[in-house]
Amino acid sequence: MEFKRGLYVGRFQPFHNGHLDAIKYVLQNIDELIVVIGSAQYSHNNHNPFTAGERIVMIRQALLEANVNLDKLWIVPVPDVHLHMLWVSAVEGYTPKFTTVYSNEPLTRRLFMEAGYKVNDLPLFDRKVYISTLIRENMIKNKNWTTLVPKAVATFIDEIDGVNRLKDLAQSDRIC
Amino acid sequence: MEFKRGLYVGRFQPFHNGHLDAIKYVLQNIDELIVVIGSAQYSHNNHNPFTAGERIVMIRQALLEANVNLDKLWIVPVPDVHLHMLWVSAVEGYTPKFTTVYSNEPLTRRLFMEAGYKVNDLPLFDRKVYISTLIRENMIKNKNWTTLVPKAVATFIDEIDGVNRLKDLAQSDRIC
Amino acid sequence: MEFKRGLYVGRFQPFHNGHLDAIKYVLQNIDELIVVIGSAQYSHNNHNPFTAGERIVMIRQALLEANVNLDKLWIVPVPDVHLHMLWVSAVEGYTPKFTTVYSNEPLTRRLFMEAGYKVNDLPLFDRKVYISTLIRENMIKNKNWTTLVPKAVATFIDEIDGVNRLKDLAQSDRIC
Amino acid sequence: MEFKRGLYVGRFQPFHNGHLDAIKYVLQNIDELIVVIGSAQYSHNNHNPFTAGERIVMIRQALLEANVNLDKLWIVPVPDVHLHMLWVSAVEGYTPKFTTVYSNEPLTRRLFMEAGYKVNDLPLFDRKVYISTLIRENMIKNKNWTTLVPKAVATFIDEIDGVNRLKDLAQSDRIC
Amino acid sequence: MEFKRGLYVGRFQPFHNGHLDAIKYVLQNIDELIVVIGSAQYSHNNHNPFTAGERIVMIRQALLEANVNLDKLWIVPVPDVHLHMLWVSAVEGYTPKFTTVYSNEPLTRRLFMEAGYKVNDLPLFDRKVYISTLIRENMIKNKNWTTLVPKAVATFIDEIDGVNRLKDLAQSDRIC
Amino acid sequence: MEFKRGLYVGRFQPFHNGHLDAIKYVLQNIDELIVVIGSAQYSHNNHNPFTAGERIVMIRQALLEANVNLDKLWIVPVPDVHLHMLWVSAVEGYTPKFTTVYSNEPLTRRLFMEAGYKVNDLPLFDRKVYISTLIRENMIKNKNWTTLVPKAVATFIDEIDGVNRLKDLAQSDRIC
Repeated sequence: MEFKRGLYVGRFQPFHNGHLDAIKYVLQNIDELIVVIGSAQYSHNNHNPFTAGERIVMIRQALLEANVNLDKLWIVPVPDVHLHMLWVSAVEGYTPKFTTVYSNEPLTRRLFMEAGYKVNDLPLFDRKVYISTLIRENMIKNKNWTTLVPKAVATFIDEIDGVNRLKDLAQSDRIC
Repeated sequence: MEFKRGLYVGRFQPFHNGHLDAIKYVLQNIDELIVVIGSAQYSHNNHNPFTAGERIVMIRQALLEANVNLDKLWIVPVPDVHLHMLWVSAVEGYTPKFTTVYSNEPLTRRLFMEAGYKVNDLPLFDRKVYISTLIRENMIKNKNWTTLVPKAVATFIDEIDGVNRLKDLAQSDRIC
Repeated sequence: MEFKRGLYVGRFQPFHNGHLDAIKYVLQNIDELIVVIGSAQYSHNNHNPFTAGERIVMIRQALLEANVNLDKLWIVPVPDVHLHMLWVSAVEGYTPKFTTVYSNEPLTRRLFMEAGYKVNDLPLFDRKVYISTLIRENMIKNKNWTTLVPKAVATFIDEIDGVNRLKDLAQSDRIC
Repeated sequence: MEFKRGLYVGRFQPFHNGHLDAIKYVLQNIDELIVVIGSAQYSHNNHNPFTAGERIVMIRQALLEANVNLDKLWIVPVPDVHLHMLWVSAVEGYTPKFTTVYSNEPLTRRLFMEAGYKVNDLPLFDRKVYISTLIRENMIKNKNWTTLVPKAVATFIDEIDGVNRLKDLAQSDRIC
Repeated sequence: MEFKRGLYVGRFQPFHNGHLDAIKYVLQNIDELIVVIGSAQYSHNNHNPFTAGERIVMIRQALLEANVNLDKLWIVPVPDVHLHMLWVSAVEGYTPKFTTVYSNEPLTRRLFMEAGYKVNDLPLFDRKVYISTLIRENMIKNKNWTTLVPKAVATFIDEIDGVNRLKDLAQSDRIC
Repeated sequence: MEFKRGLYVGRFQPFHNGHLDAIKYVLQNIDELIVVIGSAQYSHNNHNPFTAGERIVMIRQALLEANVNLDKLWIVPVPDVHLHMLWVSAVEGYTPKFTTVYSNEPLTRRLFMEAGYKVNDLPLFDRKVYISTLIRENMIKNKNWTTLVPKAVATFIDEIDGVNRLKDLAQSDRIC
């Protein structure tokens, strides 16, 4: 059987249980998986509170905690080029060769399909609940968020004073 | 009489009947016209679904269909620099020399006037109806849009599966 | 006693009485103050109508009018890098060495604190009233704004036809 | 027979007889040709003295003079992205769809081949003589250059005081 | 004893035996090591022939071949910002927190020292021989290079037709 | 008599006696002078070792030492846009309005003249000796440089360990 390497893209702001489930699911069907940390150059804004470096730590610690075999994974930050006609090429330039893309995001799917890739669906894993926007809002409003992310992620966000960073960002009138 | 070359700027997302009417109108008063395709580097986002290349095709095919003489026209994509203090210079750098600008857009008018250009109004040609934002919305909502654009444009958008691209963009939660 | 140089950051769109009060207040506690004009590369958009050059003029003329000693001040435009992880370094690269930061803006405070700076509060000086967003809105709606800025600023904005520029920007449908 | 659209890329600093011969040659084998003006954003430096706008004028006037049918041509300026992994996608985004590339330039050939395009050679047309670098040098050293470019190009360069611009650039100690 | 994470920066064009020796050496003195792939956005030019993705593959396969424990390593591509005053912050933003830097490169050392980091020397490991510039030259001139890189790297470069890419780049007259 | 504001552009790497003489000379013929610190975003490379902030300090301290009246001067860092067709507009956007330009640099002169400005020569002031490139070389080679710059500049460069920074840069093999 042919060796198969897949690609999974997210911003992981933060990395949550839905992301972890998706990676575990995909790894059952594939030899290796590239996890692209998108919009890697951004941090400290409302949509992207965490740096690429912080997100790499979250992902790796969550995968270790979940006993996912890191040898089958490539975790690669990719900065956003904002010119969507260039985006697939940028991802290709930052990553090992891949043949299959896993995504439910309509634009991601379309860009890869227009570039000739096969794009697979992901099962939904309670997408309503495990959604980064909601988790960020819960952090700001002192609602529950720690059960929506892997324990290792909650611990790490705590260590870097992440919730207060989000609260400061929410009150900022700077234009990002 | 002096040779007169005019300038007309648009994003043409998509090129519609109002744009075509404007070009035909301006060509009556002028020797040559430069049609600048603005924000040329963008595509696949809600405000700019089509690439510069696709917009060049739309414009040229619509003009051919309307028997407009291409010899009097220069169609030039110009990427946006986002620094408005530089924008007029960027347009000047990408285009042949021109003396008159045709625009109803308040900021475009102001930037060219502050740079010392004469800026002419365009007759309105049912601006309410022929407005790109509305046309894009109609595409997404399966309402009528094909009669608002030249036939050649409707055909071309169909060929490139443009309506589905817009629908995907509308559902995307990626930040553009 | 040790020589103390402070830093005060703003976009100054436009420079208003609250800014002037803040500078006068800080100068009482410090030897020299760097006034950073942020987002320096932007102009002619709704959030940033005035160029860096225009803002330098506003600030300097307002300070002269208020008899503030310019010898203790450094007025430095700094373009925005939009990558917040780089922003403090960018400010450091454009300015003389400083030890204290004065700001009430939550994100500015956090970025400097994460980089190890001491950040001081500013007294509020009627922040509700002297707020640039409100002043720009009042300009567009022909409401009072001239008493909210130093006289020299009002005169200068008048000279450069600033209110009409804001009105044009407000009506523009260009995407900034 | 299938409709065939080709692509020909150059910087055209300036457009010379070799370029004209190449275009005439390619048009014999193809239905339409896209002429991409590369490095479109540059001007006023030693390698790129002329703006994209000036180069568009040179090309169009030379083609008219040579009775080349403009209806089969698309002349499109494309700014350089400098990230070669993105370059083919950028060209694709700025142009109508094409199937064949014509180039003798090794990197251009490789980038298009790695992206899956068929790349054709161009006959050499005295490449030694008709080479832009040599022509620019001759301009600076008051040697013959006017016979190496189409008459219309020589006239246009004269009109815009192009030779003196090159001489100024050659003496500049600014870093480009 | 305190947990210690180090940083090692290179462009790895290509990854050679000297790099491998350096990593093995550093890992003896430290708990974890971040390997930063610098100038990550570049490829297909004379100084940077390989993409970030290709370099990640080279490094990982060479480390696997050498039985280096990947669990102690973070391999992170970081695009160059070209503004050296921002470079250390960019590296910090893309990586997990680190306390020690390993480098013999004078500018890298200076930038980290000016930012307050402890910078350690690396033993030289035949720097004269294992130098990327020399290896790239040897590739172009058909001289020996395969013994200067890990076997896995030589194999991979062969698979991607890397030597011919370098030869094409060497003959290109495009300005990078 | 009309109020006259001039413009003088330099990179000031470092600010030397020739620059000081030029400023003193120009101030005799003009009401106010804008001193533009060009290539403001660069530092820590061979052509641009000092940050914009460091250069502002050099200039201001040298002028104070020479008893030049700062009230007639505007010192403004301007980042380089590298697109020469945009450069004059960028300078205009960062500065107060000016009517006359003082420069001997051929490209600077041409760009301002093409934009319609009057450009004045500067007397040469021993240009052979007071040239930044030479001064930087002398620093690296331990030759005399301190008498070629104002005393305040020599002191400041000493304080920031500037000579060692230049020596490190000279030995670096990083590509700037």
